[in-house]
This record gives sequence, structure tokens and C-alpha cells, in this order.
Amino acid sequence: MYRSYTCGELRLTDAGKNVTLAGWVQRTRKMGGMTFVDLRDRYGITQLVFDENTNAELCEQANKLGREFVIQIKGTVNERYSKNANMPTGDIEIIVSELKVLNASLVPPFTIEDNTDGGDDLRMKYRYLDLRRQCVRQNLELRHKMAFEVRSYLDKQGFLEVETPVLIGSTPEGARDFVVPSRMNQGQFYALPQSPQTLKQLLMVAGFDRYFQIVKCFRDEDLRADRQPEFTQIDCEMSFVEQEDIITLFEGMAKHLFKTIRNIEIKEAFPRMTWHDAMKYYGSDKPDLRFEMKFVELMDILKGYGFSVFDGAEYIGGICAKGAASYTRKQIDQLTDFVKRPQIGAKGLVYARVEADGTVKSSVDKFYSQEVLQKMKEAFAAETGDLILILCGDDTMKTRKQLCELRLEMAQQLGLRDKNKFACLWVVDFPMYEWSEEEGRLMAMHHPFTSPKPEDVPLLDTDPASVRANAYDMVINGVEVGGGSIRIHDSELQAKIFKILGFTPEKAEEQFGFLMNAFQYGAPPHGGLAYGLDRWVSLFAGLDSIRDCIAFPKNNSGRDVMLDAPGNLAQEQLDELGLKIVVK
Amino acid sequence: MYRSYTCGELRLTDAGKNVTLAGWVQRTRKMGGMTFVDLRDRYGITQLVFDENTNAELCEQANKLGREFVIQIKGTVNERYSKNANMPTGDIEIIVSELKVLNASLVPPFTIEDNTDGGDDLRMKYRYLDLRRQCVRQNLELRHKMAFEVRSYLDKQGFLEVETPVLIGSTPEGARDFVVPSRMNQGQFYALPQSPQTLKQLLMVAGFDRYFQIVKCFRDEDLRADRQPEFTQIDCEMSFVEQEDIITLFEGMAKHLFKTIRNIEIKEAFPRMTWHDAMKYYGSDKPDLRFEMKFVELMDILKGYGFSVFDGAEYIGGICAKGAASYTRKQIDQLTDFVKRPQIGAKGLVYARVEADGTVKSSVDKFYSQEVLQKMKEAFAAETGDLILILCGDDTMKTRKQLCELRLEMAQQLGLRDKNKFACLWVVDFPMYEWSEEEGRLMAMHHPFTSPKPEDVPLLDTDPASVRANAYDMVINGVEVGGGSIRIHDSELQAKIFKILGFTPEKAEEQFGFLMNAFQYGAPPHGGLAYGLDRWVSLFAGLDSIRDCIAFPKNNSGRDVMLDAPGNLAQEQLDELGLKIVVK
Repeated sequence: MYRSYTCGELRLTDAGKNVTLAGWVQRTRKMGGMTFVDLRDRYGITQLVFDENTNAELCEQANKLGREFVIQIKGTVNERYSKNANMPTGDIEIIVSELKVLNASLVPPFTIEDNTDGGDDLRMKYRYLDLRRQCVRQNLELRHKMAFEVRSYLDKQGFLEVETPVLIGSTPEGARDFVVPSRMNQGQFYALPQSPQTLKQLLMVAGFDRYFQIVKCFRDEDLRADRQPEFTQIDCEMSFVEQEDIITLFEGMAKHLFKTIRNIEIKEAFPRMTWHDAMKYYGSDKPDLRFEMKFVELMDILKGYGFSVFDGAEYIGGICAKGAASYTRKQIDQLTDFVKRPQIGAKGLVYARVEADGTVKSSVDKFYSQEVLQKMKEAFAAETGDLILILCGDDTMKTRKQLCELRLEMAQQLGLRDKNKFACLWVVDFPMYEWSEEEGRLMAMHHPFTSPKPEDVPLLDTDPASVRANAYDMVINGVEVGGGSIRIHDSELQAKIFKILGFTPEKAEEQFGFLMNAFQYGAPPHGGLAYGLDRWVSLFAGLDSIRDCIAFPKNNSGRDVMLDAPGNLAQEQLDELGLKIVVK
Repeated sequence: MYRSYTCGELRLTDAGKNVTLAGWVQRTRKMGGMTFVDLRDRYGITQLVFDENTNAELCEQANKLGREFVIQIKGTVNERYSKNANMPTGDIEIIVSELKVLNASLVPPFTIEDNTDGGDDLRMKYRYLDLRRQCVRQNLELRHKMAFEVRSYLDKQGFLEVETPVLIGSTPEGARDFVVPSRMNQGQFYALPQSPQTLKQLLMVAGFDRYFQIVKCFRDEDLRADRQPEFTQIDCEMSFVEQEDIITLFEGMAKHLFKTIRNIEIKEAFPRMTWHDAMKYYGSDKPDLRFEMKFVELMDILKGYGFSVFDGAEYIGGICAKGAASYTRKQIDQLTDFVKRPQIGAKGLVYARVEADGTVKSSVDKFYSQEVLQKMKEAFAAETGDLILILCGDDTMKTRKQLCELRLEMAQQLGLRDKNKFACLWVVDFPMYEWSEEEGRLMAMHHPFTSPKPEDVPLLDTDPASVRANAYDMVINGVEVGGGSIRIHDSELQAKIFKILGFTPEKAEEQFGFLMNAFQYGAPPHGGLAYGLDRWVSLFAGLDSIRDCIAFPKNNSGRDVMLDAPGNLAQEQLDELGLKIVVK
């Protein structure tokens, strides 16, 4: 061992001890005849002292140390004159008697501080230096701890972690697969799993009863913000269970994580909301419930007064921003610009303020009497000082989504999205299908193995679009941290679902034959869910992006700029694989 | 929940309780007016009883149940008349009052029993049924438990589990990479990691201090027995440590696993052996020390007596098989055939028995006096009843390896390789390099980042082939379960090593530039090791192959016969990737 203690553990009670420390030079300061060095490792920072009067030569060596040099020192623990209450080791310093440079360092391209001067590109290229920053490393420590606690909880609940293969077959349903050419089976390809969905269902057929895996998954998608081509799931499945059993067990897991990771004790059950209500009241299947600002529908109240925009609208709805009546004209114009951005797409914004005397002053006063406006005020339970914001449109769902964006923006502006406050929610009763304009057919909202609600099964023949699924999402602060469903275990029902999804029997057989075949040998009732570990960690870490809770993330072009990957292959390798590059 | 208890938990103390169970029909038996059904789940088997006299209709239903039907029953726990002491639930049975078939099953293609009638091919095709067999499922349960205990131990020791990327760059040194074409960077490829070696070293540069990961690794090799294209490593790295620190910590981990998994308390330190001694005395860098049978070199004793085979040999060595003098001529002929097989390649086998009167009777008596043979006997410390077996050859290392095979075979025949006995060992002081006939150059024995022993560094210039490395393997029962080394943290030394390995500076820069660059920014002294989880599990499970401790293994052609992967890609997918198949 190059050290007898880490840089984070010495305290006043250690004064007088002879110690050996090793670490990185965070900073050096000369003051009079003294040189102070902050020595850093993963565990903390300890101040080293070199005194010119005692040992001029040693002090001279210390003066030559550069930032990020790796050194080893021997010395004596000493009580500090001026203590630093902000550091756990702030009561002591080390009077150094020996100094050895273990490795020099070039000047790093950015400062190794929480507030670094390095931009994103530089930080990613030198990720190994970026990871030295405490704020980044702590995210990875949090990630370790969360994964560890997930495993502890699930192990206690009788779950077995089973590794499923990474080299599997391609399944065209869903996103695009990454593929791996096979050298031993030239011309054929493996695919990397988008999730171990079918494999975990096979483990249920195999009688494993309770399975989980913290596992890398892969999607070859065009990367939007906060997507990574490889990401990590907490993947779980159980047999002989109903939806309620799964919700109970995994709500328990979430509470365990809140307690052990964030020291938050949640006693009450998580609220539940149907998908239908989530869309109606929040315009989202993952509403952020840290704040209320529920949608109020205004078609009955505001239609028929000659305001053609509203009169012709399919949907009119609004939110009430408490205490925001003080918004200036300029602020409201900015909100109008916000909702009119192409990403959101609203045509305009109607607003109304509740004045000190209780009257309502709106941007459409010429169409509405105070009486109508008071009815509207009542519908929102609005009070003096509140600001009502209204959108309308000819597509209910689209308009709700626009209103959802506005709601989130207002909450942001009003400081209602506190990163240290957590609002958990189960969204349930998802529709089985959603219509895809692009494909011109019904698509599975979750995946094709999701079970319909038993009471809705007859609707499969008459009105499939209205069938609800035994599917559920766990939402925290507007982030879908996980989701799952009860699966179909009956091969006849599965065949029917495939048919509704537009699979010919041949195509279903080709893609999922192994699963349907397996189901003929005694598949138990089963269901499960999967969490996005990256998202959950970033939520607990208070990060805006998942990138900083991943050790070596890729950029938006799917490149690892540190490793400079992907890269070219040697011709020999291509030949072995029987491949030729034909880039257009 | 479909059950109130599992099929493994009811005991005599539960008698009288009304219970609900669910599981698979293991077997049905009709005896008189009674029908007995063994109901199975992951947790055990419970006997169900249906009585024709009490409920004829229900009994009739039970008689129709086929093997592997999934059923749910309600009934009352009853004390059995004839108890079965071999089953934890053997004291009770369930008098069934309700029966529901949750899912029927086709007749499985093989019996779901420990001694199944299914051959390997059938078992792999229907792996989900194979996994229902207790003996197979237990291996996966063991694997879960081992991984869990590894994590518990390392977490307590301050290690952080950090996920490294699966899509990385290709590194031609080592085995062949699996590659992944990039759609967003057409014509370029990611590679799947053969190990996270360079990434974990970067984590040390990043100051992570103690890293581990249980991680999938990939090698596109022609599959020999007991190799899989994807396998799992327990990958570990530490900073500011010397070889001794790593050995101590990971010996602790091995002892923790022995204690928690196998309930074996190992108090004493694992023995250590230099690579040189391992080769000299056991002809292997992973000697099986469950038994002694050490090599004795006989050049001094047996040369110069006119036996031309020995006189011309570079190496003559043998082993003494205790108590095997009773081997018949036929048995010895079989051993001779064994060593002459092309896989082993010896030219012949000389034997000598120690007779009841202490004399030695050998197959080469005409060349050697009893005096010489007695000297030989002494060299082996052989006693009456022992059998001495001798090989010779003109290549010392090759002959030692042949003798190693013979030693293992003899131990097998003599029952010395008890699967419930464990002999642990550290092999240390590996050579840095080995000569590759194929490549015509020195190759890194471990990998190019392995540090030479400091005292051997001067030899790098004068006699690189004799340089020893700070490298170590953990060997249990002749299986290399893990291995590692202290790494080079000095970029000048690293550059020198690359040069000896035949890398031009340009090639080194191209392949490892990011690592050498990182080392210029303050790399700490570091080292680590990696265990093969699959091998270790199969060792603890007493398996001959790693295959049955992997949920969904691939066959020797790298195929998953259950999923039928790899498979063909749609032309559209190939076009998106800019690839064309040109299979010869």
C-alpha cells in the first residue's frame, strides 16, 4: 500500500500520528516561508504543510509540484491554527517530512473543480479528468449505491438475477436494433437486445418465478437529447401475480431507495391515476405532481359568445397559475411565443388575471361578460392574484400536450419544480393500442405481449382501439422511471393480438415463434416491469441530463469522443465477416 | 397473487390451514380411488390429493391433468400417513377442494427430471423446459448468490461498481473482436469489449481508487469446448497498491465466497508458487493441487546407461502414482495410448513398479541396474505398491505439458479429483513475454499494460525474454479462476514495452493513444485482476462445463438454437448500415 490513510479520514484525534498519504495535487499556495498543498483522492482533501525554515530542500521540491501531480508523502498529523469547518479534515494538516513524486502531470486542459472552466466537448474528450471532479464522481457513487440497494431489496424478495445473452436475434418490432455480423455464420447477424423482454418471459415459462437483471440495452435511434445508444435497465418479471402484486412490490422497492439513498421516508401509498385522467388533467402520461395546476376544460363555459377561435375549437382548456397575476405584458408575450414555437405548435394564448377586487380581466374581454368570466374563475377556483392561461385547438390530444408544456414552463418559472421534492405516481389503465399515422395501423402502446384487461377482452373483436391494458408506469416528478404490464400467457390470445397488430401468422411465427412455442408448454400467468436506471439516478442526483451519471457516455452522433469510436475496420476483418462497405 | 404459499414451504405445523397453491404438474398417480398430483414450483414440490369418494367430479378433472400443466388449487393442509423424509414438504399433503387449469401444456419433448431423457441438442432447443429441471436451475441460483456475495464483499471494501460501455473501439491486440456497424457513422464500426481493461485503467487515472464490475465480455474465437462467445468477468482494479495488497484483498474475497457459498472456512493463507516452479513441478501454470504427484526430473539419474531414448532426450521426468502398482499391463497400455494421442503427442511411456520386497520392476530393466532404479525410487520417495510413470522428450516445456496431462489422468483414475475438495493457489512471477512461433515475435503473456518486476526492468534492454512480470493468477483445482497484474503507470516505460512487443510508435498511438495520453495527466500506481464468473460458478457447482451455469448458452458454432440466432437481416437494414454481404 502506498498510503496508511486516505485523504478523507484524518481527524483531530489523529494528531501526532505519523502517516503516509498519496493522491493528486489539487492546489499549492505559498505564504511567507510556508508552502501549503491540498492533496486530493476519492475520499477527500488533506492539507499538507512544508516549512522553508525546517527543511528548505523539501519545501523547494513542494514548490515545483504542478496541478494533478501524483505524490506520496510521509509526515505528522498536526492541529491547524486556522481550522476549516467546511472540510471533514479541516481541523488538521500534515507536517511533511518526505515527498515522492509518483507521477508528473501535464497541465490539465480544464480545472478539476466543481465549477470547471471546461466546456462539454473538452470534458468528454478528457472524460478521465472530468471524472476526477467531485460533482461528477458523486453521481457515479450514487449510481453504485442505487444499483446495490436495488439488488439488496430484490434479493430479499426472492428474486434471482439471471444474465440473459447480449448476442440475440433481431426483432424488427420496436426501435432499430444494433446488429453484429457473425464470422462463424457468414452473412448472418446477431442483434443486441433492446430489452430482455422475450428472454425474461421465457424465464417465467422456465419456472424462475422471480427474475431481475440490471442490464445494458441498446437502441439504434437518432439521438435526441437525453438518449444514449446504450442504456441500463432494472429489468424484472414475476409469475403467478396480478397487477396489484407487482405494484405493491415495486412501490416497496421505490420506497426502499428513497429511504436508503435520499433518506426520505414515504409512508403513504403512491397515488394512482388512469392514463385517461392523466391525459385529461395534465396532458401527459407522466404528469409532474410536485405541483397541482390541473387542467380545466372550458368548452361549456366559453363557447357560443362569438369568439370564433373558441367557438370553432374542439378543445378549450386552461391552467391557473397561483399568484402569477403580476406577470407583465412582456412576460405574457414571452409565454405566447413559447407556446407558438414549432416544437409546441399552439396558435395563440389567451390569459385572464384575477384582480384585487375579484373581477377577472382577460385578453378576450370584448367577447365575454364579467358573469361568464366569473363562472370561469369558479371553474379554476381561482383567487385574487392568480393568472389563468388558456389554449384551444381542433385536436384535443394535441392541444392537451401543448397545455402540458405550458404548465411545466409556468411551474419552472414559478419555482415549483424543486429538485429536492419528490412526487411519485402510478399511471394505470393504459390503452392497449395507439394509432400510428405513419404506419397506418394500430401499434402496441407498450409491446405486443401486454395483456388486455380481462373485462375489455370482448372489445378486441368490436373496438380494439378502446381496449385498456393491464399496464402501469411509475412516474416521479414527471419522469417515467419505469413501466410494465401483465403479459399474455395464453397463446391463442397472443395470436389474436398479433393479428390486430397486423402480423400475418407467418410473420408472427418468424419473429416470435420461439416465444409462442414456449407458451404451449405451460406458461404461468406473469408480468413485470423495467426501470431506466440512468434516468432514476439522474433524478436522485438532481441532474438535467442522464449523461453525467454515465461514466463514459456517447455524444449525439453516437460517438465516444474519448475513445474515438466507432472507427474503421481493417480489410482483413471485413473479409472474415464476408462484408463490403457500400457507403452512399 | 395466485397463491397463498409456494410449493416448498408448507410443513406439519401448517396442518389444518386452508391454502392456495399454484405451479406445474410434475406427475400424477392413481391409487385405488385416490389421485395424487405432485405440484412443482421453484421452491419445491407439494403433494395434492383428490379423493374419488369425496368429490368424483374434481377427481375426474385431476385425472385429465397432463405433465407440465399449470394449475391453481385450493385445499386444506393434511398430515400424511406415509411421510416422505426426502422432501421438506414430505410430512404433509393438500386435500384439494378446488382446481383450476391456468394453462395446459403439450407433452414436453423430454422429462423434467434431474436425470432427463433429453439429449444436449434437444435441451438447448427447449432451454426454457431444461431450466425447469432442479439441477439446472440450482446452478443459476448459485450464480445469483455468488454474484451477490461478490458485490457485498467488494462494496464493503470500498469498491464502486462502474458500468463501462459495451460499444467501444476495436483493439486488434488479443483475440478477435465482435464488431457493430454504425448507422450514424456509416462505414465505421464499434467493437464489443474483450474486457474493460483500458477503461478500468482510465477509471484509475480518474481517481476512482477502487473499481469493480460484473460485466459481459466478448471474444469472436473459434469455440473450443467450454468457451462461449460472450462470458462474464468479475473485473477489478485498485490504485496506490502493490501486488501484495491485491493478493490479500482478493484472497479475502475468495475466502468470503467459500464461506458464504460452500460453507468452507479457509483460515490459512493460500499457497503461492512461481510460474517457473509450477511449470517445473506440474507442467502447467494452473496446477491442480488437490493431490501431490509432483514431477521428478530424472536426467541425472537415468542418462548414460545406453537407453538411447533417454540418452538423447532433453528432458526426462516422471510422476509417482501412490498405490497404483496393481495396474495391469492392459491399463498401462491404455495409459500409453493416452499419452500418444495426437492432442498430447508423447512418443511413449516408461513405467516402473515398486514391488512388495522394495525392488523396482520397470519396462526398461535391461538398461538399468537395480541400483540405478533404487536411486530413482528414492528420488520419488516411492514406496511398495507405487507406480512410477516416466516421459521424455527433446523439448522440455512440451514434455512437461504431456506429463501434466498424464498426471491429471492418473489422478482422475485414482479418484483424487474430488469435486467437493478445493485446493487454492496463487501462481506468481509470470514471464512478461512468451515467444510466438506464429508471429515470430515476443507477445505479452498477460497484456501489454502489465508491469515488469522493478528488479527486472534493466533486463528489458538486454534480455527481455527473461523479464518477470508483477502478474498473478488465482488457481483453484487446476482451474484458472482469475488473474491480473500491476499495471504500468509510467508512459515512458509503457512506450518501451510497446516497442519490445513490435508496435511502431504510430501503431501504438493509433491503438492506445487515448490511454497513453491519459497517463500523461497524473496516472496513479495501480493494478487489478479479473475473474471468470462462469468458470468459478461451474467449479462451485461441480460442473464439467460452464454451459449449465449460463441461462441461455450458445453452441460450438456460436448459435443460440432456441432463438435461432444469428439470422438474416432485411435488405433495408443492410442498406441503412451501408453494408453488402459478399459471402465466399
